[in-house]
Amino acid sequence: MHFAVLVFASVATMTTFGLDNGLMRTPPMGWLAWERYRCDIDCKNDPKNCISENLFIDMADRLFEDGWKELGYVYVNIDDCWSSMERDKDGRLQPDPNRFPGGIQRLARYMHDRGLKLGIYGDMGTHTCGGYPGTTLDKIEIDAQTFADWEVDMFKFDGCYSNAVEQELGYPLMSKALNATGRPIGYSCSWPAYQGGLPPKVNYTQLGQICNLWRNYGDIQDSWNSVLSIVDWFFENQDVLATAAGPGRWNDPDMLVIGDFGLSMEQSRSQMALWAIMAAPLFMSNDLRTISSGAQSILQNKMIISINQDPLGIQGRRILKEKVGIEVFWRPLSNNASALVFFSRRTDMPYRYRTSLSKLNYTTGSYKFTDVYTGKTDVLKDSTEFVVSVNPTGVVMWYVSAPGKLKYHPFLRGGKLHGPAYDAEENNFPRVFL
Amino acid sequence: MHFAVLVFASVATMTTFGLDNGLMRTPPMGWLAWERYRCDIDCKNDPKNCISENLFIDMADRLFEDGWKELGYVYVNIDDCWSSMERDKDGRLQPDPNRFPGGIQRLARYMHDRGLKLGIYGDMGTHTCGGYPGTTLDKIEIDAQTFADWEVDMFKFDGCYSNAVEQELGYPLMSKALNATGRPIGYSCSWPAYQGGLPPKVNYTQLGQICNLWRNYGDIQDSWNSVLSIVDWFFENQDVLATAAGPGRWNDPDMLVIGDFGLSMEQSRSQMALWAIMAAPLFMSNDLRTISSGAQSILQNKMIISINQDPLGIQGRRILKEKVGIEVFWRPLSNNASALVFFSRRTDMPYRYRTSLSKLNYTTGSYKFTDVYTGKTDVLKDSTEFVVSVNPTGVVMWYVSAPGKLKYHPFLRGGKLHGPAYDAEENNFPRVFL
Repeated sequence: MHFAVLVFASVATMTTFGLDNGLMRTPPMGWLAWERYRCDIDCKNDPKNCISENLFIDMADRLFEDGWKELGYVYVNIDDCWSSMERDKDGRLQPDPNRFPGGIQRLARYMHDRGLKLGIYGDMGTHTCGGYPGTTLDKIEIDAQTFADWEVDMFKFDGCYSNAVEQELGYPLMSKALNATGRPIGYSCSWPAYQGGLPPKVNYTQLGQICNLWRNYGDIQDSWNSVLSIVDWFFENQDVLATAAGPGRWNDPDMLVIGDFGLSMEQSRSQMALWAIMAAPLFMSNDLRTISSGAQSILQNKMIISINQDPLGIQGRRILKEKVGIEVFWRPLSNNASALVFFSRRTDMPYRYRTSLSKLNYTTGSYKFTDVYTGKTDVLKDSTEFVVSVNPTGVVMWYVSAPGKLKYHPFLRGGKLHGPAYDAEENNFPRVFL
Repeated sequence: MHFAVLVFASVATMTTFGLDNGLMRTPPMGWLAWERYRCDIDCKNDPKNCISENLFIDMADRLFEDGWKELGYVYVNIDDCWSSMERDKDGRLQPDPNRFPGGIQRLARYMHDRGLKLGIYGDMGTHTCGGYPGTTLDKIEIDAQTFADWEVDMFKFDGCYSNAVEQELGYPLMSKALNATGRPIGYSCSWPAYQGGLPPKVNYTQLGQICNLWRNYGDIQDSWNSVLSIVDWFFENQDVLATAAGPGRWNDPDMLVIGDFGLSMEQSRSQMALWAIMAAPLFMSNDLRTISSGAQSILQNKMIISINQDPLGIQGRRILKEKVGIEVFWRPLSNNASALVFFSRRTDMPYRYRTSLSKLNYTTGSYKFTDVYTGKTDVLKDSTEFVVSVNPTGVVMWYVSAPGKLKYHPFLRGGKLHGPAYDAEENNFPRVFL
């Protein structure tokens, strides 16, 4: 176990490392109920979709049997509306007895028996967003201990029905309380999303010390507009956000809605690609029992998952916004490799975008690239002009491996400095990023 | 031939009948280049997708070989950017010689040999929207004769680079000129879209006399936002628009973008359903060479096509807007049947909408319905409460056949009278509509 109970004794001296519970050294992956199932508690009329142990068992079975687990999708996470409306006689949260008759611990063991993990949800405040019992400051220790007793592996702490002062106390206290249980529990903090997501109200250095991941922005919905608004916000604020991320501490742009109702196949490929560039947690919220083969193949794309899970854990950036509606994103990866995404905001027809790797700030040399969706591979000199045809609302995504040194120049186009400046002589870009 | 050259002699006395060229007694169906291929004239770098005779031949082959023609998709329509930049020495339009080396007449005969029809495009004004030669008032007769000589079957008359006065002269003149050629040529007028689409600037009685279809509103784009904005406009103005439509004269909400890049499968089913409710022309603008089987099966749904093509030609209406984001649409069909669409604007999860046929203004009795997408059939009493589960941005669409009399009440919910009032005693709803 990599877990260090003593980490909080030395918090004051830790300014550059993440929550040291040894967890989530790469972005967590799994399944989360909220976006697709919300607070559906109508098990009488909607038994297959209501928030109940059956739903989580169904999804666990699919993760286990349909090839998801081997790819890293191991968390099965409960969200709001799981609990009884009353705490028990000892003041502990308890699951709704009709919908979770076996209890949470039995559900956790169901996951563990299959190599999966169970996540649960609470709220820093008087009530959860759905109106269930919240975790006020005086309940933090008992709730953390309850989750540990149940052998839960991850905890999402929402922020409805509390104010900024309570949150400033509660989120660090919960981190401490979870650590104090001795059980490694991944800790997801909604705190920054309730405080606008940006400094000075949000302290990302502190978040990296107390949380494994955090929601910076509003909830995703099942629509392309929603995905776009999230993409816009995260990349417009990339200078603040990218440096906050690293192994054990991740910005969370919220769930993948691939496999639901609102995204086209192109848009699904775009969400997957951009979430990989962002080093985002990959929590699907969909129906794995009925998912289309098209959506499944996007979510199970091994090369994109490996980019998302790159061990350096460097969050990528947007490096170009062209007036024609093409944007280019870039993420540095281990082994001197990198990922490139060409994204089209157009709504007319495929756009033939002409560029070269040198225009994208690659240094002199030859590069091998693989199109992660088509599998096509080729070698390009940095100076070679090439054309990528990018579909409306779609992406072309490349894994680029660099035989030579990779050097990233300060990006001066448009007068604004985008992206980090690497030391070309030392070629030590990961350190510069962190 | 049902064509009547003399129709314009008696225009003044015709106030309730459409352009009497005998064409398009049901909404025209086919394929139109614009939305998907725009003004792509780069045949050197993009030979498969540029506006050239090869593109239209490719699409004709697909319509002919892949089951489209038998379903009614017979028009293959050229849009902008087909012509040379100069008229010929006799003042006639001529196709670009490099992209249409065989000429338009040979292309028309290629269509006719396969039971298909060819459409072409022009612009009432000095230039087309893409900057090609326009049809000024003095060129109307020669251009109409050119199209007839080429054996063209349909003509779309755009309205860039002209003013309201010129349009008021030009659109009726072109109608007369087309009729005067003696060749039946379906006539699509963009006129109302250039005049805001609504009375008093737009005279729908006159449009029905001179045009077979007309574009009321802006161009569709390959996005759900665009489809929604069109749906909103057409149903918000349904009281004006629905009465304008009928056999031979149709409102045109623009092309189907099903099979392109921006719509999910749910959204594709919604566009198809709502275009059928609107009695809209069904012009696909997509790549029939590479279309997915999912999109193809939506576009080839026989029951929806038969609803769209119902011989009564009555444009349907929105009859309910629920605060929860569910809307209900209804279209009366021949044989005392009707079509119902339950549409969800939600972006969260499937909504279980509870209602009954009596709440949707069906009279006492039993009704047989068929879900046009699932094929499920059942019988419902008017008073029976039922639940339809409507997916986010999706529809449930029913073909309802009425064993008894169908009576439609004035719709009073929300204080506003929606839809037509039928004479319950005479049960003659088609006449009331027209």
